[in-house]
Amino acid sequence: MAKRSWTQNRDAKAAKLDSIASMLDGKFVKTQNAKELLESVIKPGDKVVLEGDNQKQASFLSKVLASVDPQKVHDLHMIMSSVSRPEHLDIFETGIAKKLDFSFAGPQSTRISQMIADGTMEVGDIHTYLELYARLYVDLIPNVVLVAADKVDHDGNLYTGANTEETPAIVEAAAFKDGIVIVQANEVVDKVPRVDIPGDWVDIVVPADEPYQLEPLFTRDPQNVTELQILMGMMAIRGIYEKHNVQTVNHGVGFNTAAIELLLPTYGEQLGLKGKIVPNWEVNPTPTLIPAIESGWVKTIHSFGGEVGMENYIAHRPDIFFVGKDGTMRSNRAFGQMAGQYALDMFVGSTLQIDKYGNSSTVTNGRLSGFGGAPNMGSNPHGRRHSTPAWQSLRPDDDPLGKGQKLVVQMVETFGSNKKPVFVDHLDAEEVQKEAKLANVPIMIYSEDTTHIVTEEGIAYLYKTDSMAERQAAIEAIAGVTPVGLRSNPKQLADLRRRGIVALPEDLGVQRGQAKRSLLAAQNMDDLVKWSDGLYNPPAKFRSWS
Amino acid sequence: MAKRSWTQNRDAKAAKLDSIASMLDGKFVKTQNAKELLESVIKPGDKVVLEGDNQKQASFLSKVLASVDPQKVHDLHMIMSSVSRPEHLDIFETGIAKKLDFSFAGPQSTRISQMIADGTMEVGDIHTYLELYARLYVDLIPNVVLVAADKVDHDGNLYTGANTEETPAIVEAAAFKDGIVIVQANEVVDKVPRVDIPGDWVDIVVPADEPYQLEPLFTRDPQNVTELQILMGMMAIRGIYEKHNVQTVNHGVGFNTAAIELLLPTYGEQLGLKGKIVPNWEVNPTPTLIPAIESGWVKTIHSFGGEVGMENYIAHRPDIFFVGKDGTMRSNRAFGQMAGQYALDMFVGSTLQIDKYGNSSTVTNGRLSGFGGAPNMGSNPHGRRHSTPAWQSLRPDDDPLGKGQKLVVQMVETFGSNKKPVFVDHLDAEEVQKEAKLANVPIMIYSEDTTHIVTEEGIAYLYKTDSMAERQAAIEAIAGVTPVGLRSNPKQLADLRRRGIVALPEDLGVQRGQAKRSLLAAQNMDDLVKWSDGLYNPPAKFRSWS
Repeated sequence: MAKRSWTQNRDAKAAKLDSIASMLDGKFVKTQNAKELLESVIKPGDKVVLEGDNQKQASFLSKVLASVDPQKVHDLHMIMSSVSRPEHLDIFETGIAKKLDFSFAGPQSTRISQMIADGTMEVGDIHTYLELYARLYVDLIPNVVLVAADKVDHDGNLYTGANTEETPAIVEAAAFKDGIVIVQANEVVDKVPRVDIPGDWVDIVVPADEPYQLEPLFTRDPQNVTELQILMGMMAIRGIYEKHNVQTVNHGVGFNTAAIELLLPTYGEQLGLKGKIVPNWEVNPTPTLIPAIESGWVKTIHSFGGEVGMENYIAHRPDIFFVGKDGTMRSNRAFGQMAGQYALDMFVGSTLQIDKYGNSSTVTNGRLSGFGGAPNMGSNPHGRRHSTPAWQSLRPDDDPLGKGQKLVVQMVETFGSNKKPVFVDHLDAEEVQKEAKLANVPIMIYSEDTTHIVTEEGIAYLYKTDSMAERQAAIEAIAGVTPVGLRSNPKQLADLRRRGIVALPEDLGVQRGQAKRSLLAAQNMDDLVKWSDGLYNPPAKFRSWS
Repeated sequence: MAKRSWTQNRDAKAAKLDSIASMLDGKFVKTQNAKELLESVIKPGDKVVLEGDNQKQASFLSKVLASVDPQKVHDLHMIMSSVSRPEHLDIFETGIAKKLDFSFAGPQSTRISQMIADGTMEVGDIHTYLELYARLYVDLIPNVVLVAADKVDHDGNLYTGANTEETPAIVEAAAFKDGIVIVQANEVVDKVPRVDIPGDWVDIVVPADEPYQLEPLFTRDPQNVTELQILMGMMAIRGIYEKHNVQTVNHGVGFNTAAIELLLPTYGEQLGLKGKIVPNWEVNPTPTLIPAIESGWVKTIHSFGGEVGMENYIAHRPDIFFVGKDGTMRSNRAFGQMAGQYALDMFVGSTLQIDKYGNSSTVTNGRLSGFGGAPNMGSNPHGRRHSTPAWQSLRPDDDPLGKGQKLVVQMVETFGSNKKPVFVDHLDAEEVQKEAKLANVPIMIYSEDTTHIVTEEGIAYLYKTDSMAERQAAIEAIAGVTPVGLRSNPKQLADLRRRGIVALPEDLGVQRGQAKRSLLAAQNMDDLVKWSDGLYNPPAKFRSWS
């Protein structure tokens, strides 16, 4: 029997690198040769990871990829955690790419829907971030990864700084499996401020024509927080944070959770909760946390990614944030999601639709957005074995072999900004499943994992319900005048309140009249800057006063 | 109001490093100064991570830590994924340490039980590996980490090679939060073969007095595989691997799964399954996989850690394993567990006890072993959103909003090697909970996550059961002559078989008479060496022939 080769990947990589020897100066390829580079090292059908975090984008390399000759490079299997830029989808129209595995597609969610419907794109599947990274080591091992760095030295050592995000997780999968690691760099320097990724792991560096795209996705202007959101925030603080003694938390992006962050130093202080709840956070450095940090509520924050404008503030608060010896933040999306899943008492998020059972989704008609990290953090990790007071407070009374549960909280107003009811009998996601031919209905957070729902009406303690009928009744009770909510009746509500399954503001000692904007620790962006001692530097689009 | 300092951790670290300036040569401290070093940089009450993977041990640093003056260093909060060496517990008796958070304590499980009972040790909690790493970024952020490396260069760059294991995950938590990273190194070199961890992340290097302890924990000698295990393996291959079209898998450590590995190239080949099942693995490089690799069954393997004796074989099979540019393996326990949780169709493990409901545990009377990675891999990850044929094959028929499920398989003989029944009415773990005052019963894998149980009697397809009573009946049907098994009756068994909830060998087309040792692809260690073309080099204790 002829012996097989056991070095096919290594040989293929060596051949690819040989073919570009003439354009290589050490590990460096000139900016203007980037197109030829990609045409030489990416083969038809290759699995290619293109770094698109939801903040940082390898935008130079994505533009170059979109410019290659589809005769030379075609039918790629693209793996992207975030589909954010037009050319991320253009490559499917030109035939450069064929199949997509992804996690989140906020800005491009409508176009993805269309492209699936008309057959332009084949979707592998929708993932949470962590499971997409996991598959890079098992059944989606990449041939080529295209990533972005702030600075690189002449040996290829990378400084990725505050926006390290997913770069280490995707680079490692290629670097140790004979894949090719290609880096676009904002700047080439003699010495990087610190090494985030060893040069050993990098094959090719291309100086970019301009710095990588970076969006301030987690900034919420306090002036847009409404009094309904303040009311909901007060209920959450009393009825969930205090009640369950929550110590470790992730807040999703949104004004509901921004309201809570801005209420801790005021309303939380009035309640005497300072030092008693939420010292440890897994969350991006959201500016609305500044007042809580400055007034001593927050002890530590680990982050998935950075946030534009927060750099200097973070550098001056190393006791709070994860910061390197060079003085700038280090983020890590893979480890952040790992922490978000396994180390937290509570996930608090929002959604676009909740069905009568408590299943929720941000996938709506014509919009296949994916879920990012929400299903990972917003689910009960069955593999967890350590206990905390909050976790244990959800332990069922009647099962000697029972254990605690993660608090998964959905905060929604009963009607969305589009005036449509959030509470519905059937999720639009059920239709989307059929249209996009998905294996399952694209539910973001399942009913079985959802422990609390907060609306402007009250809180439903779903974990206390004993049957699906009771769960539905609890949801109806806080669903306001939506069609689902109109099924509730006073007798049922009274019974649910009596049994602690539903709480209205008055049950929690929350005074509706106190839910005023004046209760927020910061009224606007300028206030956040003042709280930060001038260290927070909001992006221009948030600077109304200058 | 006096301004608070926001750099207390950084200042504390600087003060510690200042105090040892006289013993520092760059980042290096002499071997003989290690005790004074630890007495200077570890303060009473510090959170200290001591690297004890279940294979690699920072054995020099653990010995030195056990030798420090308890007057100077005491009441430490130790964080150890694996408690493996005597001095890991000695430090609690001398008062150097007070509290322990851990994941696995195989060799020391009896002593831990005693020390908790007599109050020598306070246990924080028992974790899976991944959740322990997760907490390093949230509420168990370390002050000092003590880790082991193979080689280090003069800048502190580390080569950790095949046994990289958990080192990157624990170093990062300290390096970016003003903790102190102390490394024991087997060897100091001018240039490391490759950089596994950047020198930037390392504060102090101490050349060790001898190489770190490393155990071949995943080696199973084929000569000890029994014919009952072969029968169970044949059933599993037909009734699970083939039936569910399993592509991605983790095998726990044990002879049951070793039997399956050795049956793939023989029995699997007879069944025509080659190329159809289990191409992608997340597993340590177990020698019993060599025949399956050599005969083309296995396409890729990502590993948590290395395995002694497999180094040269792995170096010659880079298409299969994750290997660096230097030609040696890279492992990663954190990413491996992430993959084990989210990227696999199936986890197959074994246990010491299974209760009548299907809950299982390796914690038995007087033995608090912890669970390592089993609960993480052996649970249904609710955050998973991608679908595979195997996953989807467990989707309930009756729920339009339902989704697939991970296959979690327990393989046990009905009686253990101690002649005691594996199937019991109540787990010993229930008693251990009370004795060790644990928050919950230390169950390794819960009934709700267990989808299949395989014994020498047959397979119970637990995921098909509709009620706890039916689940109990299915377990009874394959529990042999244990007290639980004796409750089964022929009528019930016939009904369960008819409905596909229980399968006996004959239902699967498995011939008991074929379950002979001659069916194994390798009979002994020598056969494995031959399969490997002489590349596998078994540790001395497995070399009976030389």
